[in-house]
Amino acid sequence: MAPTPSWVKALKPSGPQGHELLKQERAKSNIAVEKLSEFLFTKKVIERKRRVLEILESEETFDKSQNYFAGRIDRFEIALARAKKLRQLKVKHGWTLKEFRAAGELISEPGPYGLHESMFLITLHDQGTPEQHEIFLKKAENYEIIGCYAQTELGHGSNVRGLETTATWNSGDKTFTIHSPHLTASKWWIGSLGLTANYAVVMAQLIIDGKPYGPHPFVVQIRDLETHEPLENVHVGDIGPKFGYNTMDNGFLLFNKVKIPHVNMLAKFSRVDPNTNKYVRPSSPSLVYGTLTWVRSTIVLQAGGVLARGVTIATRYCAIRRQFQDRDAQEWERGENQVLNYTMVQIRLLPLLAATFALHFTGQSMMQLYQESQMKMSRDAGKAGSAQRGAGPEETHSGSDLLADLHATSCGLKSLASSIAAEGLEVCRRACGGHGYSSFSGIGPWYADYLPTTTWEGDNYMLTQQVARYLLKSARSVLKGEMPTNDTTHILSNYLSRADMGAAFDVIGKDEDLVAAFAWRTAYLTFEASKHRDEQKKAWNDLLVDFYRLSKAHSQYLIVKNFYEVLRSSSTTNELDPETLALMHKLFRLYALNTLEQESSEFYTSGATTVRQIVLARTNTVMKLLKEIRPHAVRLVDAWDFPDWQLDSSLGRYDGRVYEDMFHRASELNPLNAITVDPYPDSGVTFKKDESREFKSKL
Amino acid sequence: MAPTPSWVKALKPSGPQGHELLKQERAKSNIAVEKLSEFLFTKKVIERKRRVLEILESEETFDKSQNYFAGRIDRFEIALARAKKLRQLKVKHGWTLKEFRAAGELISEPGPYGLHESMFLITLHDQGTPEQHEIFLKKAENYEIIGCYAQTELGHGSNVRGLETTATWNSGDKTFTIHSPHLTASKWWIGSLGLTANYAVVMAQLIIDGKPYGPHPFVVQIRDLETHEPLENVHVGDIGPKFGYNTMDNGFLLFNKVKIPHVNMLAKFSRVDPNTNKYVRPSSPSLVYGTLTWVRSTIVLQAGGVLARGVTIATRYCAIRRQFQDRDAQEWERGENQVLNYTMVQIRLLPLLAATFALHFTGQSMMQLYQESQMKMSRDAGKAGSAQRGAGPEETHSGSDLLADLHATSCGLKSLASSIAAEGLEVCRRACGGHGYSSFSGIGPWYADYLPTTTWEGDNYMLTQQVARYLLKSARSVLKGEMPTNDTTHILSNYLSRADMGAAFDVIGKDEDLVAAFAWRTAYLTFEASKHRDEQKKAWNDLLVDFYRLSKAHSQYLIVKNFYEVLRSSSTTNELDPETLALMHKLFRLYALNTLEQESSEFYTSGATTVRQIVLARTNTVMKLLKEIRPHAVRLVDAWDFPDWQLDSSLGRYDGRVYEDMFHRASELNPLNAITVDPYPDSGVTFKKDESREFKSKL
Repeated sequence: MAPTPSWVKALKPSGPQGHELLKQERAKSNIAVEKLSEFLFTKKVIERKRRVLEILESEETFDKSQNYFAGRIDRFEIALARAKKLRQLKVKHGWTLKEFRAAGELISEPGPYGLHESMFLITLHDQGTPEQHEIFLKKAENYEIIGCYAQTELGHGSNVRGLETTATWNSGDKTFTIHSPHLTASKWWIGSLGLTANYAVVMAQLIIDGKPYGPHPFVVQIRDLETHEPLENVHVGDIGPKFGYNTMDNGFLLFNKVKIPHVNMLAKFSRVDPNTNKYVRPSSPSLVYGTLTWVRSTIVLQAGGVLARGVTIATRYCAIRRQFQDRDAQEWERGENQVLNYTMVQIRLLPLLAATFALHFTGQSMMQLYQESQMKMSRDAGKAGSAQRGAGPEETHSGSDLLADLHATSCGLKSLASSIAAEGLEVCRRACGGHGYSSFSGIGPWYADYLPTTTWEGDNYMLTQQVARYLLKSARSVLKGEMPTNDTTHILSNYLSRADMGAAFDVIGKDEDLVAAFAWRTAYLTFEASKHRDEQKKAWNDLLVDFYRLSKAHSQYLIVKNFYEVLRSSSTTNELDPETLALMHKLFRLYALNTLEQESSEFYTSGATTVRQIVLARTNTVMKLLKEIRPHAVRLVDAWDFPDWQLDSSLGRYDGRVYEDMFHRASELNPLNAITVDPYPDSGVTFKKDESREFKSKL
Repeated sequence: MAPTPSWVKALKPSGPQGHELLKQERAKSNIAVEKLSEFLFTKKVIERKRRVLEILESEETFDKSQNYFAGRIDRFEIALARAKKLRQLKVKHGWTLKEFRAAGELISEPGPYGLHESMFLITLHDQGTPEQHEIFLKKAENYEIIGCYAQTELGHGSNVRGLETTATWNSGDKTFTIHSPHLTASKWWIGSLGLTANYAVVMAQLIIDGKPYGPHPFVVQIRDLETHEPLENVHVGDIGPKFGYNTMDNGFLLFNKVKIPHVNMLAKFSRVDPNTNKYVRPSSPSLVYGTLTWVRSTIVLQAGGVLARGVTIATRYCAIRRQFQDRDAQEWERGENQVLNYTMVQIRLLPLLAATFALHFTGQSMMQLYQESQMKMSRDAGKAGSAQRGAGPEETHSGSDLLADLHATSCGLKSLASSIAAEGLEVCRRACGGHGYSSFSGIGPWYADYLPTTTWEGDNYMLTQQVARYLLKSARSVLKGEMPTNDTTHILSNYLSRADMGAAFDVIGKDEDLVAAFAWRTAYLTFEASKHRDEQKKAWNDLLVDFYRLSKAHSQYLIVKNFYEVLRSSSTTNELDPETLALMHKLFRLYALNTLEQESSEFYTSGATTVRQIVLARTNTVMKLLKEIRPHAVRLVDAWDFPDWQLDSSLGRYDGRVYEDMFHRASELNPLNAITVDPYPDSGVTFKKDESREFKSKL
């Protein structure tokens, strides 16, 4: 590859320079960026990030410069090397779990130890007995065995009960036989399984004496601890390339009657008694239910940050990119206009900017609620002796009641938040114009890696049925005249009490009315659904589309409500300066009114707003908010505090040196340019010269 | 890599088998698939495809089995080999351009000769003089020189006038100096330039005697014809990896005062007179305008087929995939339900299935209109002597008038159609659940390659301004009382004439009313925009969001209208049997009513429908249509007639052997499985054994 000629090195982008433009942008607003960052994350978390970043940046293993160029095998190998190095660093620096996770976020790629360090360890910990902790968990924690969590099968995703893999109890020798009766029983999509793991927690249908007892977790060794070759009667491998997530070895796994000892069934909740050969029922199935709720709440919280990466990149680049003159510009206004000044760009980016904060606050509230419910649960457990059944105000705010509400809430919000984040990232990518398509934009690869979140931990469409089921149940209770026990039943009974007066919400004038309009629409849709299902006895399947809408409406209400409540809370008003707080209120209004406008048909059919209000919201209020927020856009994304190293984006650089970076990566880091082709069809040669390997090894 | 054990080979998916399910699906409907295919494409085109397919399948170069596994460099090398082989086959078999293009569609990947074979040849042909044809075009047609079309720059996309590359006329030695004054002047995104081309048509600002004359095309040699090394003072290379399109070498290009002779400025329309050193103005700039219209019409036509690939894959797989039981299912209804039976899946897939036909028919109509306008243009040109100015019915249907309408139409439809296709493909991918994320689904890679269509040939957001400008102009003409001259002015004046009576469209009961409601909404939005711009003098920038909506509304009207008119035309009613025709009408209604429901706020604010009609459309009519179309879904996608070889999808196989194919690709074609890792963090080794190269070479 020829070196860059000196005349090229002397070239600069035409002015105004990106760094000048971003400087101007930052001068236009006096948002206290640092203060806002600390409000979002706390000072402690930010300092932790900086500390960890310094260590990572100094390690060659984590050099990102070839990430976008490497093929699957190289990427996987590098990811494995990074996973190992990260473990070494954790030991060396005595990192806490939080520091370790902060490192993972900065590296921002799935790694081959991913499922070992999450689901494998968690499942062994949560579902294993002390004896099993001794045998499996200790070794796993020391990386003497590397594991994964094998649930999904080639033919079975969301429906766990449909799993085909069997674990048959052999009363004779007190063992289980793990078996894959069909090709569709093959475990599939299992992270860390493809090449890395030598152990797996396998979810299999327990069979005792010919009778099925449903899926249970079994610890199974799958590869030799020395040679790492698959054990006999185990067929295991990587499932191949994916839309993203290619640094992870998602795997497949088939068993041909593999025997495992009795102790390998994780037995904290249910087990087989080896003496009686009988099944012992689970003591507390709702604990697992709790874990899923926690995982989904995490997804909601993360969705804000996930989206914020795209919004940061696109906002900065749209402040630097200039295209055309404003059509109404005067002669003397020379030069092209910053793309971010066009309302068509603002309407795409600024509501997403508002959404990043909305999701972040909602996620935080959910995590808090989850912790509260867990605390109440354990307090309730203490009082379990005196517990009594029946509906009554005493029981209503019990931990399990809160948890049921939180479970439904987390389903709907997981679905909505991850959809907003995934689809929002694609909007950000396109808002960058042509360059958004380059891997160097940093959005495409990030989007591709994030997409599975819309499917895992409950498919985003499937999940909405759980929300509808919960809301229907709540509607029944309210219709029976039971007292409201939580926010959901509260908004439903409030709606009922006003049903013959209708609503009159000043959605443009008053923020609390805006929230109330979202509550009204949810309640309206809930009672509509209840009418269809409970009165008209419509088929469940015929209502799925309505249920999806209902869940979305409910989750939108929750986001709007949380955003509003966070802004009103005393901790917020104390921590944020008045100007930042006022701007946050504008972001709240933009998010809420833009959502209202997008879902306008449900707002007016429910009578929550008039048609005129919606038209005014769109043509006046939203457009005005865009104008008011625009000058602060760059500082607002700065508050998300992503280090350049984490974003790994030419377009999203903090310093605005966008074109220099694009050019550097293309011209100087791109191994394809170490190849000289033969361009003629009949030559019989494709590459005249291929120095790409030498080039890469020199980097 | 260990061979697949015999016990694995013996495994089958659990029943019912995919091939049985698809057989049942095909038995449920009696749509005449072959007949419908011929109606869509003509028998001739289908036979051509089969003929070409047979040749391609027999050539090892086109073997697709490693496509999803190969890294960028390998993929590019294979794509180059394929491009060369394709050229050889064209010569060998004496293929027509149509046969050649059919081959390209079957191969379905962008290739390194792509821009040579399109824009380079077209530009030389259309914008070169006979002398230039002799010098450049002939060599290009014989692949003695390989070219590209270098317009876009690092800092300049849509705005061609902002290009920075200069071509300065040297009156002394009668040459031009091509120069890149800044880094942002670097040509960027140029297909076939990165590694392959040795010539480029460079769009550069013509400068004569210090005065700029705007961008013009110059033929510039960039690489040595023997060594293929860049010429002196030329810096050229590949711009790096992208979200998709990685078989193409999109390139960058910088010039340091490179001199080219006078003959290298393409001079059919405008030129520099070498004797007087004066600029000679273009004779007919509107011809280029015509080419763009043609390109955009092609994009509309292709959008149907592009989307149909995703819909075919998702529909077949959703007929095979089973998850959960229907909640209302009876005890005796054993087994899991086909995913395609869930209304939540139907509402995502079936309107897209309807859209494939809608877009196909609309594209066909546009191509036809384009040809008509071209014919009229040349007839008009013959009568040019007697032409007269002024508004009158005689002039109204002139070729240029038609072309102006078609130009605006093509802008709006290009934007809408490519957005529908791109976003629809992602919907199809997700409808496949987890497996949609696997590259073997065939949707992800196809989507990633298609995405640039939303940006090139006019960014999908930018373009809508042109539609708005045209509609505003039409509104002014109608408001002035001028006679309607085409469909656009016709629907506008029809709206005006009924403005004080309002509308009463029976959108659910009558198909022609459904079309009229779409026209009404377009006219309403046009006059609203006209009020804002012309009366209230609102800033152009403040109206961009409204313009975007207006363009979308207008294009949706055109699609609905075209779909309807095609179904009513005598050629359709003659060619299709009554049952298929009736089903097509249902697809029309599903497409129109589903669109109406999604855009409902504009329909009721315009008074085109009542709120009640929209609620009924959603809850009754659309749901009923889904039920009625559902049994025919598999046969309808069959009519799109995609060979398996073209789809290259495990999930979309015609024979339904989905799981066998997924497993085969993962377990037997995946080179990552020829690697054995060392799983322990402290071992200092990542791969114990790497036989991936040997594995690939054996394939």
